[in-house]
Amino acid sequence: MSEGKKLGLTVKKAENLDEWYTQVILKSELADYSPVSGCLVYRPTAYGIWERIQSATDAEFKRIGIQNVYFPIFIPERLLRKEAEHVKGFSPEVAWVTQTGDSKLEERLAVRPTSETIMYDVISKWIRSWRDLPLRLNQWNNVVRWEFKHPTPFLRSREFLWNEGHTAFATKEEAMKERDQILGIYKKITEEYLAIPGLVGRKTSKEKFAGALESYSIEHLLPDGKAIQGPDFHFDGQNFAEVFGISFIDKNGQSQFAWQNTWAISTREIGVMTAVHSDDRGLVIPPRLAPVQVVIVPIFEDSSRDEVLEVARGIRDDLKATVSVNLDDRDYLTAGRKYNEWELKGIPLRIEVGPRDVRDKKVVLARRDLLSKRSVKVDGVREEVSKELENIQKNLFEKATNFLQANTRRVDSYDQFKEIVSKMGGILQSPWCSTDDCENGVKDETGAKIINVPLEQRLQGAVCIRCGKPAKVLANFAKSY
Amino acid sequence: MSEGKKLGLTVKKAENLDEWYTQVILKSELADYSPVSGCLVYRPTAYGIWERIQSATDAEFKRIGIQNVYFPIFIPERLLRKEAEHVKGFSPEVAWVTQTGDSKLEERLAVRPTSETIMYDVISKWIRSWRDLPLRLNQWNNVVRWEFKHPTPFLRSREFLWNEGHTAFATKEEAMKERDQILGIYKKITEEYLAIPGLVGRKTSKEKFAGALESYSIEHLLPDGKAIQGPDFHFDGQNFAEVFGISFIDKNGQSQFAWQNTWAISTREIGVMTAVHSDDRGLVIPPRLAPVQVVIVPIFEDSSRDEVLEVARGIRDDLKATVSVNLDDRDYLTAGRKYNEWELKGIPLRIEVGPRDVRDKKVVLARRDLLSKRSVKVDGVREEVSKELENIQKNLFEKATNFLQANTRRVDSYDQFKEIVSKMGGILQSPWCSTDDCENGVKDETGAKIINVPLEQRLQGAVCIRCGKPAKVLANFAKSY
Repeated sequence: MSEGKKLGLTVKKAENLDEWYTQVILKSELADYSPVSGCLVYRPTAYGIWERIQSATDAEFKRIGIQNVYFPIFIPERLLRKEAEHVKGFSPEVAWVTQTGDSKLEERLAVRPTSETIMYDVISKWIRSWRDLPLRLNQWNNVVRWEFKHPTPFLRSREFLWNEGHTAFATKEEAMKERDQILGIYKKITEEYLAIPGLVGRKTSKEKFAGALESYSIEHLLPDGKAIQGPDFHFDGQNFAEVFGISFIDKNGQSQFAWQNTWAISTREIGVMTAVHSDDRGLVIPPRLAPVQVVIVPIFEDSSRDEVLEVARGIRDDLKATVSVNLDDRDYLTAGRKYNEWELKGIPLRIEVGPRDVRDKKVVLARRDLLSKRSVKVDGVREEVSKELENIQKNLFEKATNFLQANTRRVDSYDQFKEIVSKMGGILQSPWCSTDDCENGVKDETGAKIINVPLEQRLQGAVCIRCGKPAKVLANFAKSY
Repeated sequence: MSEGKKLGLTVKKAENLDEWYTQVILKSELADYSPVSGCLVYRPTAYGIWERIQSATDAEFKRIGIQNVYFPIFIPERLLRKEAEHVKGFSPEVAWVTQTGDSKLEERLAVRPTSETIMYDVISKWIRSWRDLPLRLNQWNNVVRWEFKHPTPFLRSREFLWNEGHTAFATKEEAMKERDQILGIYKKITEEYLAIPGLVGRKTSKEKFAGALESYSIEHLLPDGKAIQGPDFHFDGQNFAEVFGISFIDKNGQSQFAWQNTWAISTREIGVMTAVHSDDRGLVIPPRLAPVQVVIVPIFEDSSRDEVLEVARGIRDDLKATVSVNLDDRDYLTAGRKYNEWELKGIPLRIEVGPRDVRDKKVVLARRDLLSKRSVKVDGVREEVSKELENIQKNLFEKATNFLQANTRRVDSYDQFKEIVSKMGGILQSPWCSTDDCENGVKDETGAKIINVPLEQRLQGAVCIRCGKPAKVLANFAKSY
């Protein structure tokens, strides 16, 4: 970034969340707009965050026996059309390749919005016997969904990056066991890496994935009180297996259809992370995802320049085995200007090395999350830095968890429900009779929809928030992004 | 793989290379055909190999300061058309998106065949001052080139995976220094990981990348004596910078255009690796790229089954900290059937644990490359395995290097040249006058083209292989894939 370029945000998070969010992304150089409407450029910070999400998640997948593969980006139209609900759900958003070079294609090719249909066509040839199961595949790739709603960087992009897990089992029980494994992994990644809590639950029939029997999600809460769907898991039952002929001979010599799941986490999480943690100074990145975790800023004065720089370099060399560290020794910028730049860019921890610090064999640690400073001895700086990074990670998660808890309310009165939705937003946990009628009614009358239904239910004697008949479940309602 | 399915190759490498190559890929379960003509399905073995190539290469890139990014897969037609030579080179192979959902797009979008044009449009906004340089970006992604020639798995695929590095410098000198860094990295990866040697050199003007000033390549030799281009590096000079307005204010306050490079290694290397190392038993994977490096096969007899399995498990547990190991304890297959399967699948080292071995506290190591066996003590098995994997890696590279050397010939007579090209193939190093006329003439008359020109030249007094006039350089000629 050149000297003189306007630094810093010009709006406050509390005053104009949308404009603030856009400024954080662009000014921190996290990402940029592209010449293709609705598609984003991931600059090194955003892509570095994604690499860390991907690597942590992939290690978990490998630990439970998932194998990575890569299938073509194009899906012949006839395959996409094979499963009726699936094509209905996706075809309005498909980008179609119709020409190659100067030739018109005989059959249109969909740019994958998701890969069920092409994968299942192929794996139906691989699966013959119970010995070929389970088949647990995953791919990390790009997908395209040409949504016509207003695109928002990361949160609603026409192209995004994700994992798509596709697995096949001999029995329903094994498939359902995977649900808990995968939701557990996604919960761990969102909480321990992204430092974002979420509400795990089952989607209603109306909201489930096109072609699945059951869908599960982790739902996050954004600062404006709206929910947004995070990672998800879909139990397909034998639905796709029947359509694509994924059958096997079981141990008794009988032909059976396989039981299938699909699951995903996407670059949308980078947007949620940005919106939840960042502040009026700019981006805040949780230490475990930060491409640069620590920046060292030497404070140059003519008389002590060399001495200060030597100490700063020594600290960098000491730290670089354990953390990702950057020494900002640019001599054409003031230290204050550098502080602003690195705060804007969300570097979790700054080490200031000034002439007086050097004399006292101390340096200053400045935390990005709290904007607090404290002095530590140069001698123990490596331990202090590691501890402080852990504290920052923990603090960000606690803060986000407190926000979610403070904005999750058990509500049994429909009047109160309406008032909370319109005035405060957040999550409303309310009893529901499980009918489409009340699900649609609540949405039409209040703007809040059922984002998901918690898996563990301890509902006794409550009545539906809308119709007053006996409730079947306590559901999570919210205005949703 | 189910019992009963036909195992093993039915043709020999020396007899029908094309059919052998296809069988190796399909029967080893390296990859599979897809419903999209010319696009491949990367099964876990192929994708696992690619993950290892990618991870080793990416670590080298990061070491020299390259930053990863991600740009959209779509390029608006007007951008692709901006650089005349570039669009001429790529537009015959572009897959065009013309519709999204039910709507026709106002402007066609190219599925990226390479990303110069979209990246340079965006980075022209990021570069203002010498302080913004160098800008050294890279992306790992998928690209589509809808070639109409006969597709061959990995070697010529309509969609492939690669890295595309795109860098901008303030001076030509810095840009050219990067050439040596990047070619050095690619040489290291191909030699030390893929175990494939190559000839480094500059492409002729006729063969250079569309839009570049100079192109460099590493050329491999396939078993049939044909060359194939491996990783490449392109020096763009200020060509794209002028077209896309990538200029900066230098230290003297003058506006200058940036100097740019682009460079790539692709999944084609998996095909070269497969063709070079594999044999009549099936796939051979170099140990450093093998997703499974060691397979342990216990030899079950009723009386000693538990004892043998216990020793096999002990060895697995001992090995798993240092190598990727798989214990094949399936009890519905014979040991011999398992040997065949793992040889077909290219696992570098097999450990056989039989009843007599267990009594003698020994096991048998069977090398995939040499198909040789030797007995080692259970006690020192970890060290023996590590050593043997290194030996296999080294042996594969030596064998491939010997093949390349034996098939690289200095030829000064055009008659001899023609005879060698038609009868033996391989690389012919011959003097060339550097005219298009002789380059085209040799190709038309013999079928061999100039694959590249070695960077270091010590040519004295030789005359052009075709016209007899004084030669400017010694060039590498070959029939090329």
